[in-house]
Formats: sequence, structure tokens, C-alpha cells
Amino acid sequence: MRIFYRALRKMASALTEVSSNKVFGGLQKVFSHESKELGCKMRFAIFLPAQSEEKKLPIIYWLSGLECTELNCVQKSGIQRYAAEHDVIIVCPDTSPRGLNLPGEKDSWDFGEGAGFYVNATEKPWSDNYRMYSYVTSELINVINSNFPVIEGKQSIMGHSMGGHGALICALKNPGLYKSVSAFAPICNPSKAPWGIKALTGYLGPHETGSWAQWDATELAKSYNGAPIELFIDQGSDDKFLDQLLPNNLVAACKEAHVPAILKMREGYDHSYFYIATFIGEHVSYHAKHLNE
Amino acid sequence: MRIFYRALRKMASALTEVSSNKVFGGLQKVFSHESKELGCKMRFAIFLPAQSEEKKLPIIYWLSGLECTELNCVQKSGIQRYAAEHDVIIVCPDTSPRGLNLPGEKDSWDFGEGAGFYVNATEKPWSDNYRMYSYVTSELINVINSNFPVIEGKQSIMGHSMGGHGALICALKNPGLYKSVSAFAPICNPSKAPWGIKALTGYLGPHETGSWAQWDATELAKSYNGAPIELFIDQGSDDKFLDQLLPNNLVAACKEAHVPAILKMREGYDHSYFYIATFIGEHVSYHAKHLNE
Repeated sequence: MRIFYRALRKMASALTEVSSNKVFGGLQKVFSHESKELGCKMRFAIFLPAQSEEKKLPIIYWLSGLECTELNCVQKSGIQRYAAEHDVIIVCPDTSPRGLNLPGEKDSWDFGEGAGFYVNATEKPWSDNYRMYSYVTSELINVINSNFPVIEGKQSIMGHSMGGHGALICALKNPGLYKSVSAFAPICNPSKAPWGIKALTGYLGPHETGSWAQWDATELAKSYNGAPIELFIDQGSDDKFLDQLLPNNLVAACKEAHVPAILKMREGYDHSYFYIATFIGEHVSYHAKHLNE
Repeated sequence: MRIFYRALRKMASALTEVSSNKVFGGLQKVFSHESKELGCKMRFAIFLPAQSEEKKLPIIYWLSGLECTELNCVQKSGIQRYAAEHDVIIVCPDTSPRGLNLPGEKDSWDFGEGAGFYVNATEKPWSDNYRMYSYVTSELINVINSNFPVIEGKQSIMGHSMGGHGALICALKNPGLYKSVSAFAPICNPSKAPWGIKALTGYLGPHETGSWAQWDATELAKSYNGAPIELFIDQGSDDKFLDQLLPNNLVAACKEAHVPAILKMREGYDHSYFYIATFIGEHVSYHAKHLNE
């Protein structure tokens, strides 16, 4: 299998290894590659459990929140311990295109670089590059499948805050693509909250265009009619951004549309990686169960 | 016990809470206080397991390495999970005095700010403030004992790299003060390695003064004759700084002096927090066993 893996890597699109560290018996690596979808060089992190040297494994994609890179989950969540226990590969992409120097791209912490919102932008100057949705749901999956020992199709997705919403829309817009989806403190209804309104206006144009509903998890849940999927929403009760996140809007929409949803409220927890670190083991177990069914 | 704890806090020296996050059922807090020993405002991090609301607990001090602050262990090691399992408090001080603006203090990454080396300096301009040894072994212990629900005297110490050496010298210079000591990739023999020679020369003057032996774990082990203590040394085999760390020098000195030492070599691991995260649970268990004897 080792030989097979190396042969695969030679055939595949060019990846450059940025770093490699042994952790919990596996390897935490970072690679860069030229993204066609985003028109720039991108980085992603991948954790390969020791078992990946012997056989193909299922995979969980992690989408990070505002201001994050491919490293936040890798350095702060402790996810490798659980991924090693369950023999699952973890892939963490970056949160936006990088290094484009588009006008205004670095003016805000909650829009532009580090804040791609996992949509495909239609407004100039973003529409040529800010295509994180297609990058995550298509190009990156192909890159991973061609370069690493994954069981194709055995994939799940989760994320945090902006990335929690990203995970939800990736799953809701692609019935069957992911075996399971979960989200920590997701922005559940961006059309109704300041961060979301700013991002959707900037990337998609004003609400009146009618395009927002295709990029809002609460709206997508209302009209969902694909293969059954459960939405696992995790939320800290002391999260100071609850007015940005609006989990109850999503839960109400799911109830109305008969989409199964779990909302776990965590008493006293906030929006930080300390909260994520506490419960990420439970999420990895949840996904592993679905991936191994 | 809650009332007792609050009353204690009112009586004690003034601490300012910088942050508080719930993690693994407990609270990860950061405080600042005016240090008399260092002549500046210092920060430390403290993890209080849920059980600390009900009863006094033992404590482990963690000393970080070059360039670190009180946060590296807190954010990257995952230690809270193990501390919560074993009902032990974790305290992480900063790695040097801060904000003094002494001449040359910020010129190097491996000397001055972020690189206090846990010694008491005798050379100007460092000797008035660079007293991390007395801060860690005396002032900080008093601050913690007066402000938090700890079992006085039930304390252990560990650290990484520069802080691993710090833990070793704090234990070797104070027989009986710590119930156990362990170190990840410690600088074991600073008198013989570039980082150590630079630091000892700067803080203590040239080797010829004869003072270095009192601040070098390998030299201290040779002359140790205090209460029996075991040195638990942890080392990654792929650590690129092995020529700075010299673990074999310390192990040889311990053997000669009949000081018990364990050296665990970890195949393929490097100097990073990924390595620490993998094995810190084993260290917390080791200390908990000694603390609960």
C-alpha cells in the first residue's frame, strides 16, 4: 500500500509539502497547491493517521471560521487524538483565497481575506476568485482523492462559526455528497445577522437579487428535499455571538421541513477553541459512526 | 468551600483576571499581577478543574520554552483534558519579565524577553529583574497558594525545552519542594550548548566565574544529595535541536551520581507542540500518581 500511495502521488496534481509533524502516531502535514477555482496558491492541512500507511481511510473535512487559516483547528482543537482513535483522515482548508491583493480585500476582518464564507461570489471584484464553495465541494475533494489514501465518497464535513455554516450549506446543497454534517456555533441564518448580511451583500449583491436563499442554511433547510441527512448543531450557552448565530431559526426551519436536527446546548461554554476542544471528540465519533456504516 | 475560596481571594494580593474560558468542565483563566521579584506586571495561566469548586487540589507547574508566553501550553498541548481527568490544577507562568525595555532585551529571540532561562541573573542590566528562578520557586507559589484552592505542598513541575531545563533545576535545587518533575526535550546541559552558553554568559557572566554549575541540570545532578527524586526526561528522536539538548549528558551524570532518571525516546517525534500534545497525558498521569501518594 505504501508503494501504491507513492505512485498515486507522482501521478497527481502538484502538491508542495510545507510541513510535516508526527502527532498521536500519525502525520500532521500542510501542503500548498495552485487552485484553479480560486486562481491562487492555497494551503490545506491534512492529518494522516498511522493506519493510512496500510489502507485507505474515510475523511472528515473541517471548515474554519472568520480570520482563521488551515492551522487553527490543527493547533488548537486536539482533533488528531480522536482522528487517530477512529482511523479517519482530517482535512482543513484555508478560509479564503490568499495573496490576490484585490481592492478592499484586507480592509475588514469579517469580509475578504480570511472571510470567504464558503460561497461562490457573483459580484465584482470577488466573482473570479472568491469561489470557496466550489473549491471545497469539488476541487479540493479531487485533489485529496488523487493524492492521499482515502476511500472515495466516504466523507463527512464539519466546521466552526462561518465554517459551521459552510459545512451546513455544503451538505444541504449536495444531498448524498457527505455521510454526515456537524457544526460548532454555526452562523445559522446569515441573511438575518450582521456578519452574514455584510458578506452576502458583498459577495452576492443586495438581498433583492433573490440569490441569498441559495447560500443560507436556514433557507436551504426549508426547501430541502434530498437524501435524508441529520444536522448536528453544537452551541455554547455563553457564546457572546448568539445574535449572529441564530441557531433557533435553523432548528425551527428544520422542524417545519421535517429535516432531522440535533441542537446540543453546552452550558457555560463560549465561542472559542477551548469550547471546540472539549466536544470535538464527540463530533469525530459521530462522523466515524456514519462513515463506517 | 466556594465561600472559603472567595474569602481567600479577597485577602490575597491583587490579581486581575485577563480572561476566562470554560474547557473540559473546568475554567481556563489568565491573570495578571505585579511581581515584586521581577519588578514588572506578569501574566500567568491557570486551569481550574470543576472539582476545584468543591475541594482543594494538587497542582502542576508548567514552564514553557524560548519565545513562549503563558499561553502556548494552554492553547496547543490539550493539557486541560488530562488535568480534568486527574483533578489537578495547572499553572503556566510567562517565560521572562515583560515590558521593562532594558537595553538589548528584544535584540535576540533566544536571550532577554521570552528567554529568561529560569535563572537569577547576576550581570547588569539583568540582575534587578531577570529573577525567574525565585519567581517560579517562591513568589508564584505564594501567589497561587493565597488565591486558589490548592493543597499547599502538593505540587509538581514540568516544562519544555528551556522550560524543561527550568523544571529540572527548580527540582534539583529544592529537594522536597516538588513531588515529581518531568521535562519534554529539555536543554539538559546548557554549559555545553550554544543556547545555554549564550544565556548563562549573558545572565551570569563568563564560565570562569564558576557560577554556571549552580544553574546547569547536568552539573546539579552530579552533586545532588537531597531527598530522592526521579528525573523523567522525554525526548523526540527527530528533534532537530538534539545538539542543543544533550540528554545523554544528563543521563550519564545521573547514573554516576545514582540519581534515578528515565529517558523516554519517542521515535519520529520532533520539538513541536504536536509532540508534546501526544505525550502530555502520560506526564500528567505520572505527576498525578506522585501527587496522590
